[in-house]
Parts: sequence; structure tokens; C-alpha cells
Amino acid sequence: MKRTAYRLADIAARFGGCVLGEGNTPINQVATLDSAQDGNITFLASSKYRAQLLTTRAGAIILGDADAESTSLPRIVCNNPYAYFAKVSAFLNPLPQTLPGIHPSAVIGEGAQIDPSAQIAAHVVIGTNACIGAGCVIMEGCSIGDGVTIGADSRLYPRVVVYHDCVLGQRLIVHSGVVIGADGFGIAMDEGRWLKIPQIGRVVIGDDVEIGANTTIDRGALDDTVIEEGVKLDNQIQVAHNVRIGAHTAIAGCVGIAGSATIGRYCRIGGSAGILGHLKIADHVEISSFTLIGKSIHEPGSYTGIFPFSKYEEWRKNASHLRHLDVLADKVKILQKEIEALRRKD
Amino acid sequence: MKRTAYRLADIAARFGGCVLGEGNTPINQVATLDSAQDGNITFLASSKYRAQLLTTRAGAIILGDADAESTSLPRIVCNNPYAYFAKVSAFLNPLPQTLPGIHPSAVIGEGAQIDPSAQIAAHVVIGTNACIGAGCVIMEGCSIGDGVTIGADSRLYPRVVVYHDCVLGQRLIVHSGVVIGADGFGIAMDEGRWLKIPQIGRVVIGDDVEIGANTTIDRGALDDTVIEEGVKLDNQIQVAHNVRIGAHTAIAGCVGIAGSATIGRYCRIGGSAGILGHLKIADHVEISSFTLIGKSIHEPGSYTGIFPFSKYEEWRKNASHLRHLDVLADKVKILQKEIEALRRKD
Amino acid sequence: MKRTAYRLADIAARFGGCVLGEGNTPINQVATLDSAQDGNITFLASSKYRAQLLTTRAGAIILGDADAESTSLPRIVCNNPYAYFAKVSAFLNPLPQTLPGIHPSAVIGEGAQIDPSAQIAAHVVIGTNACIGAGCVIMEGCSIGDGVTIGADSRLYPRVVVYHDCVLGQRLIVHSGVVIGADGFGIAMDEGRWLKIPQIGRVVIGDDVEIGANTTIDRGALDDTVIEEGVKLDNQIQVAHNVRIGAHTAIAGCVGIAGSATIGRYCRIGGSAGILGHLKIADHVEISSFTLIGKSIHEPGSYTGIFPFSKYEEWRKNASHLRHLDVLADKVKILQKEIEALRRKD
Repeated sequence: MKRTAYRLADIAARFGGCVLGEGNTPINQVATLDSAQDGNITFLASSKYRAQLLTTRAGAIILGDADAESTSLPRIVCNNPYAYFAKVSAFLNPLPQTLPGIHPSAVIGEGAQIDPSAQIAAHVVIGTNACIGAGCVIMEGCSIGDGVTIGADSRLYPRVVVYHDCVLGQRLIVHSGVVIGADGFGIAMDEGRWLKIPQIGRVVIGDDVEIGANTTIDRGALDDTVIEEGVKLDNQIQVAHNVRIGAHTAIAGCVGIAGSATIGRYCRIGGSAGILGHLKIADHVEISSFTLIGKSIHEPGSYTGIFPFSKYEEWRKNASHLRHLDVLADKVKILQKEIEALRRKD
Repeated sequence: MKRTAYRLADIAARFGGCVLGEGNTPINQVATLDSAQDGNITFLASSKYRAQLLTTRAGAIILGDADAESTSLPRIVCNNPYAYFAKVSAFLNPLPQTLPGIHPSAVIGEGAQIDPSAQIAAHVVIGTNACIGAGCVIMEGCSIGDGVTIGADSRLYPRVVVYHDCVLGQRLIVHSGVVIGADGFGIAMDEGRWLKIPQIGRVVIGDDVEIGANTTIDRGALDDTVIEEGVKLDNQIQVAHNVRIGAHTAIAGCVGIAGSATIGRYCRIGGSAGILGHLKIADHVEISSFTLIGKSIHEPGSYTGIFPFSKYEEWRKNASHLRHLDVLADKVKILQKEIEALRRKD
Repeated sequence: MKRTAYRLADIAARFGGCVLGEGNTPINQVATLDSAQDGNITFLASSKYRAQLLTTRAGAIILGDADAESTSLPRIVCNNPYAYFAKVSAFLNPLPQTLPGIHPSAVIGEGAQIDPSAQIAAHVVIGTNACIGAGCVIMEGCSIGDGVTIGADSRLYPRVVVYHDCVLGQRLIVHSGVVIGADGFGIAMDEGRWLKIPQIGRVVIGDDVEIGANTTIDRGALDDTVIEEGVKLDNQIQVAHNVRIGAHTAIAGCVGIAGSATIGRYCRIGGSAGILGHLKIADHVEISSFTLIGKSIHEPGSYTGIFPFSKYEEWRKNASHLRHLDVLADKVKILQKEIEALRRKD
């Protein structure tokens, strides 16, 4: 496929920033500093990678003020090179064009309203009274439950399942294998048997949310599970019933969030972290990977609970003391008293 | 949708308990204390939420003997309010009616036996000689392998996959994205290459089991993987080959259970916990979230292995000592000896 | 189903090793020592299970030199009984025969090249210009994106999704629910909103790779995500963008590997472990279950970071000290100084 080329100056005209060097440099694709070729534009996100500027074969570079003179290659100088790069890449790599229409193998429920500009691919099932907005792309094998609403310009990759009555915003990106609105884990013990608590809430998702592959978001037990606008979820995240995730929070892969937890806005949660149920996490909280949050966090900041790894033999020696820290602390207390006694005598 | 209303007294007549206050109170839905409206019945699971009784706008409340007089609202007093609530909710929120028949887009293998009362949705594939019981609902896009048996009144949500020869009980609920009977992780190293061990066991699942979205249960290597009756599995759980999970055990999301582990009856396992292979866990064991069980547990009780989180700076200070606990313990030992020596001199 | 029987001597003729006892013993299936019946061949992987030789009802046994005389049952003596067993089991349990052809409900994109010996099952979608090799089996409901290449003799179980332009090797086994090539988690903060970084790399997978159910492998951001030949991945693993996994590495279930991590050859990673982004792990590294690798590992060996579990009451007592290890270590330092002072005085 031949790619369209733009002049560096055209890119700066579109996205701002200041061109240094040859403005006629042709740009047809983005790349890393390492693998960039002629015609590629790359970026320097941090001064610590400056050394790579010497060897890159990129046609042009996006960089910040502090690095403006670190290279003589054609370049765009701007405030936030990574965000700038994101915009350029989105411009050079548009999504495939939407092909409006409904594939003949799709099964459309009674009363479903599908905007004529939407694309419904093969083997999709759309439930009764569902509503699919303008410009939506529902890829092959998706299952959209009865009464579901999906806002305009949302894209569901193949094999997404949305259970009945869930409400999805505009410009969503939902990757394959995602399950939205399955029953939350609600059970009550009754004379030696678990009774199921019907899960009658919904999942309500704001605009501009992205959801990674095989992530699951359960419907609420009674009230709704809510994902606010701009939230970004990576793959294989589990969001339990009645969780609320605040706007613009980003969560890395494999995180588990237990029922009724409330997470603030602009939080960042590392991979494989966990959050127990019914907790509240303030806005602007950062949680490390592999950290279990076992009580509410009321102040912004960084929180960690990683147990450090070591060579197996070292770990073995050290870990044995973890089960006896209490005894060790007691020993130290006794030693303190004994020394105090010796001193007094002295 | 207009909901059917029942009298509070009718509900008590059906499910027991004692009505206090107006028995004619109309009830059409369940709700939380907080969001309940006129016509809603809610419940008080614990006396610690009593304060909410003052502000709830619920039509009626289910509560225990101890709280019977904490409100003047119409109420049902019973032994186990949460279980009672589960029953009322199931009564007020019946599943959609089964629509018997096979969708024309479904593909049915030779020799498959599908009860005429079962519902087979669009794009389902049923393998040769599979057997689907009375009243089953197999939703769109499910794939049922050759020789699979599914007991009566089971419900498989969209896009469930069951590999060949697995045996599923009655009244199962299986959520979307679940994979039952994929190959266990069996490999043998042979001259620098892994050989695959064919996985020729099955998955056998008892009655009244619920399985959450995107959970995976691998088939046995030689013998079967077994999930006993009444087990409740949340989302994204991984059950490896030849695991056995005892009856009425409940497991929260993201738990990983390694090969040939045997888990007792009536256990409760918290989210993101792990259980190593070939272990045995007794009945009535409770395991905390985020805890790795690395050896067998022979006694009922609660077990935990959570590393506590803290502010990043505190964590950093403390975690550095974890790699040197052995040294710290040795120092304390030396101090004890030295003090002993000083004392003797003294 | 009646199974074909072979003579024990025939098996040894095919796979090597030395027959002791009756070479005419009929063998029709593999089994465990415990559950083996007449006609079954089993194996002794370790001398520690020798006691079971006394009670097994197996027809024959595969064992190593050291155990050759531990039983009088018909047996094959060889160097690597487990690998030998793998070969015998594969021989006795061949995969179902491939049925070449394209199911009429499959949807095949323009320009797609499907080898006539490949099997394309019901409700499969194959994208434009995709290329499916000889002998491939693409089971029901798989979605193969535009421009994808799949090497000969690969098997994709039902409901696998492969996004556009990914390259899969020969003899792959990909289990249900796997998603290959979804977008990596690339976002840039720009004035209070996340911008998406288009993910324009691919996933490239070598020959003889197996991928467990519901595992996800994200496409590269700019360059490719690479899984080298012979890698074995269990279920529910998350492989982020631009990860490279070296040849013949085996990874157990629920592991999360963050972006741009590079893992060596012949590594073994335990279940629910995690690897942070941009790290390098040397060849022949073994990582325990539930261990977070937070910095690069340059030497082969075993590495662990498991926090040990205990009874809840013990854990509570000990865990409280973890937040104050720094203080404890300081106390010990002070004690050391004080004793030194006392001693000097003495």
C-alpha cells in the first residue's frame, strides 16, 4: 500500500509547534527512534534518550524545547512531544472507512433502531429495541442485548458481548472478547445452598472510553455500574458490580476491582493491582502494579504494596522471618528494656 | 414496562416471615435502602446500616428480629434478610421466557439430541452427538463441542465455548466468554523442545453451578476436572486441569487455581487469590483476596497472605529491609547474646 | 468408540526404549497410575511415586532406568519417561481428521487465499487478503482480520480473534477466546484528556506455539510484538504491546507482561506472576508464581517474591510490623550502639 506523504511544514500547520530545519521534508508514517526510516517522523519523549538522536535515520523528529538543539534533523518543537506524536500518528493512520449497512447474516431484533450510517458486520446479533448510533461499527460476531443503547461513532471489535439494557457512550472503542453487563457475583447463603441475587442494575459507560480485550464489566446488583467519560481500561480487567470509575482514570491490564468500589477521577492503576469492595479511592491517586488496596484512600498520591523479589535462596532465608516478625519485634522491645536496666545500674 | 405489583402480605404468604405494618403495601421491585422508591422493597442486612432506615423512601423493608422495631415502615421480619431478599428479587425479576426452537442460522451436528423445549439461538454450533436438556437456553454464538451433555434448564449466555465431551449439570448459568474444556497446560521437555501432552480428560460440572464471564476451566490431562454442585465462580477465574472444586464453594474474580489442586466444600476464596498445584484445601476454608496458597490447608479457618500497601515513600523505606530480614534477625540474636554477656559480668 | 490396540513391542519399535516383560501386552490408551485399567499404559515420572506401582492395574508402564526393576509389570524403560509418555499419548490420541472445505456460513473476504486442504468452520469470518495455510483448521466463529497470515497445520479453536495484519506461524494451537493483535494500551495525556496512540505494529508468532484460552496478545505500538517459536502460553495471560518472548519459554496461567518487556529463551514463569514494562529477562530464568519482577534479570536462576500466607490472626499480628520495618531496623541499630557504649564503659 502506498502511503500518502505530507510535508513537515503541513503537519506543523495542522497541529502547531515550531518547525526547525527543512519544512519540505516528506512524512508518511510514524516510527520509533530506532526503527525509523526515511519519510518517518519520530519523537523524543524524554531527554534521556538523546543519545539515540545521533543514530536515528528518521526523516524528522518531534521534541520539546529543552531538546530543540540536540539534533540537526528536521524537527517540530512543541510542549508535549508525546501528545503531539499521538495526534500526528492518528492523522497518518486513520481507521478504516466505515461501510454503512447491515450484513445479511446479522440478526436484528424487533424494534431495534440502527442508524443508516452504522456498519453491522457478519454474524452480529442485535437485540430487540436496541439502539445503535450514527457511524458505529459493530464488527463480526458481536452480541448486543435487548434494549442496549450505543452512542455515535463507537467501534466494537469482533466478539464483544453487551448484555441487555446497558448504555454505552459515544466514540467508545471496545476490543474483542469484552463482556459488558454480565451478572455481578451476588449470592446469599440459605440453609447450605447459595441463592442467586438477581442483578437488575445496568452498566452505564460515558463517552470516549476504551476497553481492552477480554475485560469484563458486570452489571449492577440493584443500582448501576458506572464508567465515566474518558476512562481507559487495558486488557483482562475485572470490574465488579456497582463499581464506579471516575472520569479519565487509566487502568492497566489484569486489575481486579471488587464490588461497589468507587475510584476517583484521573487515577492511574498499575497492572494486576486489586481494589477491595466498598472502598473509596480519591481523585489523582496512583496505585502501583501488583498492589492490593485494602482500605479507602482519601488523599492523592502514590501508593504501593509490592513484595520485592530476589533469588530464590535469598527469598527463602528472608521469607521465613515474615511469619515471626511479631516475635522479632518483641525481642527488640525486651532488648531495649534490658539495656535500659543495665544502663541504670551502670 | 409496567411492573406487576404484589401486596406485602402476599410476599410473606409466599416466602414466610412476619409482616409488621400495612400488609396491603404494594411491592413491584427491589432496591437499595438508598435508591428505593415507593413500591420498592429493600432490606437491612446488618444493624450497622440502621441509620439509613430514617431516610429511605422504600415502600417496605425486609429485616431481622433484632431490627424489627427500628422503623415504622411496613416490613417483613425474618431470620435471614439477605436470603429472603434474594428470593423476593428472583420472584419479582423472573428470567425472560424461554422460546423453544432452533434458530435457522444455528448449525446442528449429526446425532445431536436437542430437547424440543430448549432454545438454540442464532449462530450457535452444536457438535455431533451433543445432548441439550429440556428448557436449556443456548444463546447466540455459543459453540458446543461433539459429545457434550448439558442438563435441563441450563442457560449459556452468548459466546460460551464448551469443548468436546464435557458434561454440564442442570440449572447451570454460564456467562459470556466462558471456555470450558480447553486443553490443560501439559508439556514435557524433550531435547530442547516442548512436547504436548494430549489432554484426554473432560470437564464434569454438577448441578446449580454459576460461572462468571471469561472464566476458563480446562479439561483434565488424563482424568477429569470436576466442579461439584452448587459451586459459584465469578469472572476471569482460571481453573487448571484436574482441579476439583467441592460443592457450594464460592470463588471471587481473577483467582487462579493450578493443576490437580483439590478444594473442599463450602470454601470461600477472595479475588485474585492463587492456589498452587497438587494442593489440598479442607472444607470451610476462607482465603483472603490476593493470597497465594503455597501448601495444603488441613483445617478450616481464615488464611491470609496480603502484603499491606502504604504511601510510596513509606513502602520504599520499609521494603528495602525485606531483602535483609535474615540479617536483621541475626543482629537481634547477637544483641541478645551480648546483653547476656554484659549481664553476667555485671 | 472402540479404540485401536497396539502391542507394547510395537510402541517400543516406534518410539525407542527397552521392553521388559510381555511385549504382546495390548495397549489402547494412556492413563494415570491410579486410574489405569487393563489395556492402559501409564508412566512413572519420579521415583517418589514408586509405591503406586504396587497397586496400579495398568497393562504397562513407562519408566526410567533407575526404576526399571521396581515392578514386574510389562514396561518400557527409557531416558525421559514423561516425554516418552507424551509421544505415546499423541500417537494413541490423534486429533480429529481435518475436513477440508469452507462452511457455507463462513464469510470470506476479497483476495483471501485459503489453501484447499484447510478447514473453515461455520460462522468464521476471514478478512480481505488473509492467507490460511495448508491443513489449517479454523473452528467455528473465529474472526481472522484483513491481511492476516496463518502458517500450515495451525488449529484455531472456536471464537479466536486475530486482528488485521498479524502473522502466525505453522503448527500453532490457539484456544478459544484468545485475542491476538488488539490495540496495545497506548495513551498520552493532553490537557486533561487521554489521546489514543494508534497501534500500528503487528503481532508476529513463530512456529509450534500454543496459546491457552482467553489469553490476549496486543499488537505493537510502532514495532511488532513477537512470540518466538516453541513458546507455550497457558490461559488468561496478558502480553502487552512490543513484548518479545524468547523461543521455548513456558508461561503459566494469569501472568501479566507489561509493554516492551523482553523475556529470554527457555524461561519458565509461574502462574499469576507479573513482569513490569521495558525489562529484560535473561535466558533460562525461572520465576515463581505470584512474583512481580520489577527490574531486569541478567542471570539465569530461580527468582521469587511470594509473601507467605498464614492463619488470619497470625498474619494480622505480623503484617502490622511490615509498615514499620524501618523503625524496627533503626531500633536495632541504636541497640547496637548502646551495647557498644556499655561495653566500652565496662
